Amino acid sequence: MSRTIAFIGLGAMGRPMARRLVEQQFRVQGFDLNAEALAAHAANGGIACSSATEAAKDAEALILMVVNAAQARMALVASGALDALRPDALVILMATCSPADAREIAGMVEKAGRRFLDAPVSGGVVGAEAGTLTIMAGGPKAVFDAANLYLSPLGDKLYHVGENAGDGAMVKTINQLLCGVHIAVAAEAFAMAEKAGLDTGLLLRILGQSAAASWMINNRGPRMLEIEPEVTSAVDIFVKDLSLVLDAGRSAKVALPIAAVAHQMFLASSGAGHGLADDSQVIRAYRALNGTV
Amino acid sequence: MSRTIAFIGLGAMGRPMARRLVEQQFRVQGFDLNAEALAAHAANGGIACSSATEAAKDAEALILMVVNAAQARMALVASGALDALRPDALVILMATCSPADAREIAGMVEKAGRRFLDAPVSGGVVGAEAGTLTIMAGGPKAVFDAANLYLSPLGDKLYHVGENAGDGAMVKTINQLLCGVHIAVAAEAFAMAEKAGLDTGLLLRILGQSAAASWMINNRGPRMLEIEPEVTSAVDIFVKDLSLVLDAGRSAKVALPIAAVAHQMFLASSGAGHGLADDSQVIRAYRALNGTV
Repeated sequence: MSRTIAFIGLGAMGRPMARRLVEQQFRVQGFDLNAEALAAHAANGGIACSSATEAAKDAEALILMVVNAAQARMALVASGALDALRPDALVILMATCSPADAREIAGMVEKAGRRFLDAPVSGGVVGAEAGTLTIMAGGPKAVFDAANLYLSPLGDKLYHVGENAGDGAMVKTINQLLCGVHIAVAAEAFAMAEKAGLDTGLLLRILGQSAAASWMINNRGPRMLEIEPEVTSAVDIFVKDLSLVLDAGRSAKVALPIAAVAHQMFLASSGAGHGLADDSQVIRAYRALNGTV
Repeated sequence: MSRTIAFIGLGAMGRPMARRLVEQQFRVQGFDLNAEALAAHAANGGIACSSATEAAKDAEALILMVVNAAQARMALVASGALDALRPDALVILMATCSPADAREIAGMVEKAGRRFLDAPVSGGVVGAEAGTLTIMAGGPKAVFDAANLYLSPLGDKLYHVGENAGDGAMVKTINQLLCGVHIAVAAEAFAMAEKAGLDTGLLLRILGQSAAASWMINNRGPRMLEIEPEVTSAVDIFVKDLSLVLDAGRSAKVALPIAAVAHQMFLASSGAGHGLADDSQVIRAYRALNGTV
């Protein structure tokens, strides 16, 4: 008999992750509020459940790949999934939440007698499809080791970053701080180049292989120079992620002056109506500032 | 008979650059205010001159690798080197100056009937020694082509970035903007990690190969986590370089909100007495802010 796990949140990331677990012969009881996502999970060989509680029933592990902490709390507690799990079950929170939220959810899970791991990811949909996510896990080492069975099909870079719930979220937060600032500062640089009348395509080639390079310059730079680029990740995602970064700074009493400014630029871009555009289009906020629209 | 060129500014960068030109069989008439630098140039097979004017005498090209625009003006005009050059000589400004300074110096050179190329470099002392500098040149294409003879021994990435004097300086400025911000934001990120009690060495390994990576994180990150690291480039260099960046923004009427904040952090670090420390030690300003000193 195959082992049963619950998977809540079958969106762009969750669906391929759940599929990879199905391929490992787990019985994956999935739930998502979106009927289409649920049907796709069934088509991938998973079990489509009509509630989080039904998905959790008798599962030895529950993976949360929902949008935010509020959804995670809703699924676990309000809907009763937590109590439907096997008594020794493992709850793995893989959604991007603030460290404080991860600690609070850990408290609820442990109070219900289950084990908890805080394990956010990076690597995007491409990494989710290929099982090459980076997973940054916080929690007791024994729990991290027990979770390896479920996490190793999902990522090839598994890190145990700390003994406490919230440590994974903090590493993910710091990751997003750097990603967001690197995109915004690339926009600051290219907006200056545009105003100076430089050949921005040549500039990108020069910068992308110099000491000024970042992963983001090489990844977002080409789309930053297009007028209406394909949307790989939207401006509003960084409005949200840098908000989480600043919330984490506030709760840890850490000053984040550069991240705060970068957040304002994403916010301005969203405020000007570009929230659904590719995140490289934070450059539009700079063009507005500099009168080069 | 070998061809004569003048080389003004024989510091950490200029000395190995001049040596590479000597190795190409140029007669390199060098000048530096520092007697030791001058002696080293002679030991490398160059001609040690007692003034910029003596160095410029009958030279077909003059390379300026001085500290700033004021020194370049002093050497060219105040000391009379410009008039001592051959009438068809080429003046190549390789020092880091603002675009406005580069344009002004171009005007002086062209008024004296000589050709001018604005050609700042990146790649540091290592690149200068190995002849692998990146050279970003602004000026008429014909002048860029004529300068190839002198520049190709110095760099292996030669870019003609624009037709106008100052275009090279603008590209270098944008390069420094990104470099300075990438160092400062890495410090912001690691200072947060320190306050959160994370394993910063592990964090560096994770970030250095993720979407959060930058050339600077991988280069400066390890020294950022040391208490008294070796000084590869000092905090005060970025106090100066980000000042140039902000001056360039001011003169082009371009808002640079992130660079402005990063500059304040280098300035604070210098103000707290760390100006001569490795530039990775901008993290000390964050530690002071966060009470983790």
